[in-house]
Amino acid sequence: MAIRNLVVVGVGLIGGSLAAAVRAKGLAQRITGIEPNPQSASYALAQGLVDDIVDELPVDADFCALCVPSDLVGEWVLKLADHAATVIDVGSVKGPIVEAVQAAPSPVTNFIPCHPISGSEKSGPSAADAQLFESCAVVLTPLPQTDEQKLAQARELWQQLGTQIYLMSPAEHDQALAVTSHLPHLLAFAFMQQVSDVHTPLTGGGFRDFTRIAGANPELWWRILRLNKRSVMDSAERFVGDLGAIIEAIEHDNSAQGLAQLRHAAEKKAAEKKHE
Amino acid sequence: MAIRNLVVVGVGLIGGSLAAAVRAKGLAQRITGIEPNPQSASYALAQGLVDDIVDELPVDADFCALCVPSDLVGEWVLKLADHAATVIDVGSVKGPIVEAVQAAPSPVTNFIPCHPISGSEKSGPSAADAQLFESCAVVLTPLPQTDEQKLAQARELWQQLGTQIYLMSPAEHDQALAVTSHLPHLLAFAFMQQVSDVHTPLTGGGFRDFTRIAGANPELWWRILRLNKRSVMDSAERFVGDLGAIIEAIEHDNSAQGLAQLRHAAEKKAAEKKHE
Repeated sequence: MAIRNLVVVGVGLIGGSLAAAVRAKGLAQRITGIEPNPQSASYALAQGLVDDIVDELPVDADFCALCVPSDLVGEWVLKLADHAATVIDVGSVKGPIVEAVQAAPSPVTNFIPCHPISGSEKSGPSAADAQLFESCAVVLTPLPQTDEQKLAQARELWQQLGTQIYLMSPAEHDQALAVTSHLPHLLAFAFMQQVSDVHTPLTGGGFRDFTRIAGANPELWWRILRLNKRSVMDSAERFVGDLGAIIEAIEHDNSAQGLAQLRHAAEKKAAEKKHE
Repeated sequence: MAIRNLVVVGVGLIGGSLAAAVRAKGLAQRITGIEPNPQSASYALAQGLVDDIVDELPVDADFCALCVPSDLVGEWVLKLADHAATVIDVGSVKGPIVEAVQAAPSPVTNFIPCHPISGSEKSGPSAADAQLFESCAVVLTPLPQTDEQKLAQARELWQQLGTQIYLMSPAEHDQALAVTSHLPHLLAFAFMQQVSDVHTPLTGGGFRDFTRIAGANPELWWRILRLNKRSVMDSAERFVGDLGAIIEAIEHDNSAQGLAQLRHAAEKKAAEKKHE
């Protein structure tokens, strides 16, 4: 892997971590940042996450990682459609991005939609972590017209970063992530509403872990929930049904039904843990 | 603190951890176990968690910790009402235990209802951990007739184990724990119902933490949810209302309302983290 000039657009937690990981593995000769927030920009420069901060994609850029919020990706991709660089993003919702790109008058061939399933409730380049992508899953949802060589380059970058690559359609991705990520955040946000000062001293490790994601960036997550609206609503509806069934079992002292559901949950968790 | 013979009834995760912690701090001359499960009993003996396994509370026992499921505590307390030992329990639900004890024909004065808010999704004495209670909160809900000296002894034990003691009524405890512990478990159990093999590879740290408690012992948790039925139903109802409000905001693209709720959640989580 020899990237000449990797341009990271958006040097926050994910962009900063990507820059740090690429730097640590020596995968690029030069890393350039595009970052409108002056504090983030100067932090990234001072820490050596990037070699330079610029306003526009340099002509010599051969790889560009769009680490901006999902709803800003489409615009950037269209802007870079004629650039020679391989362009990837890291957005949590793929359907709307792909729809926006496919609506372009001429087919975009240099963009590979990506989603590294890794993150943190922290944000900003000061939380950047060169290890963030180590062993994480990355979903790629290539477009029918995606240039094969550029797809191979994107795969190689993620592979070199130590991730596990999965190829699927944008719809498959968005449905699965609604369950594994977006719904848990929604539930944690909803749960915190009734928590007050009287509860704070009476919490244990279970509470802390369960609510960790409620500390995630509200603006970012509101965007994600809205962008993946249809799949999030579907999984939320299934959840309300499943919760209602357990509540009904508690209400009517129906141990056969209630215990079956709790056991089902514990078995699934045990199966999932084997995978960890 | 000088306990002559601490008897631990139920040498599982909590009972085993209590024995290990008391041993590590040298708070008892002798630790005796009562454990009907032969595997747990022989493990506890072999590991030196207890000095002996017996069937009935010895006459010389001066402190007895009932580490049995909440719905078995009442019966044990009544059985030991005339014993000279100070008796505590560790049950997650206090109302039904106290009601059962207060229904006794003569007032029970040697029992202090306790709940150390510490645990693990693991169970059994092999998961015992001498550090389990370090810095955790313990709620004591003493009865009006509780012997002052025995209450002082119970407080001292928990203090020596490094816990933070809170005194409250059984109802206050059960309402608070419904929110901080029982509802999160219920939500995690309900959430896992729709998780399947297709989701397993696509999970990150958020999913793992959020669902950790879904791996808890189903039988134990079914008992807890039923015992604390009224408070659990109340907090589940509030949750469904709060969730519905966010879902409505997503459905109608109402960013003002949706963002306000997400920010509210993040602020509460930040306030709670300061306490950790």
